Amino acid sequence: MLNYSRVDDCFRALAEPTRRALVERLSEGPSSASALAAPFNLTLAAVVQHLQVLEACGLVSSEKTGRVRTCRVEPAGFAPLTSWIAGRQARVERQLDMLAKVLDDEDRISSTKRTTERKKKQ
Amino acid sequence: MLNYSRVDDCFRALAEPTRRALVERLSEGPSSASALAAPFNLTLAAVVQHLQVLEACGLVSSEKTGRVRTCRVEPAGFAPLTSWIAGRQARVERQLDMLAKVLDDEDRISSTKRTTERKKKQ
Repeated sequence: MLNYSRVDDCFRALAEPTRRALVERLSEGPSSASALAAPFNLTLAAVVQHLQVLEACGLVSSEKTGRVRTCRVEPAGFAPLTSWIAGRQARVERQLDMLAKVLDDEDRISSTKRTTERKKKQ
Repeated sequence: MLNYSRVDDCFRALAEPTRRALVERLSEGPSSASALAAPFNLTLAAVVQHLQVLEACGLVSSEKTGRVRTCRVEPAGFAPLTSWIAGRQARVERQLDMLAKVLDDEDRISSTKRTTERKKKQ
């Protein structure tokens, strides 16, 4: 079952460009928060805060070894987003299929009507 | 090529729960803005504003027939999101594959070393 609060958290987290950039950088390989801060021209505190948001919604995980906390992207963390999107696409496609069937039926009915009328005239 | 501004627009648009709810409703079938407003307890102006955001990023399209504008979900509009997510997942998986290969190689080297040392001792 789709967890709507997870969907909400993921969309909110990734709507912020810096957090998306952090996910992009982390998808190239695990990194410590301090190594992430430098290229982004952000303070360590700001990076840690962004990482906490990403970790809270399951998109990033972290592990502490000694004094270094290493972060990595969790591919499974995208599942709430992909499920929500796939759900919408599937429903739209079902609607389009139903519409195509109705049009097809109408087409068949009017074609039968025309044939019957032609036969009557002959 | 991935259009980053489109990715940004889509994530921002869907980070707002009301806009997600409108997409959910519209994925069940096309609707006019006024028909959407009632169940959401929103003013028509608010719904129109949300729909304009969704339309600007390609998630919704609309068509005016007479005085009624009908809106529908565009399944292809999700492509910037799904491409961005798939790109991140693919990179993480490539990293994991590379890591597995390195560990495998190390395993093979140390196993060969052990065999050589055993043979020397015999």
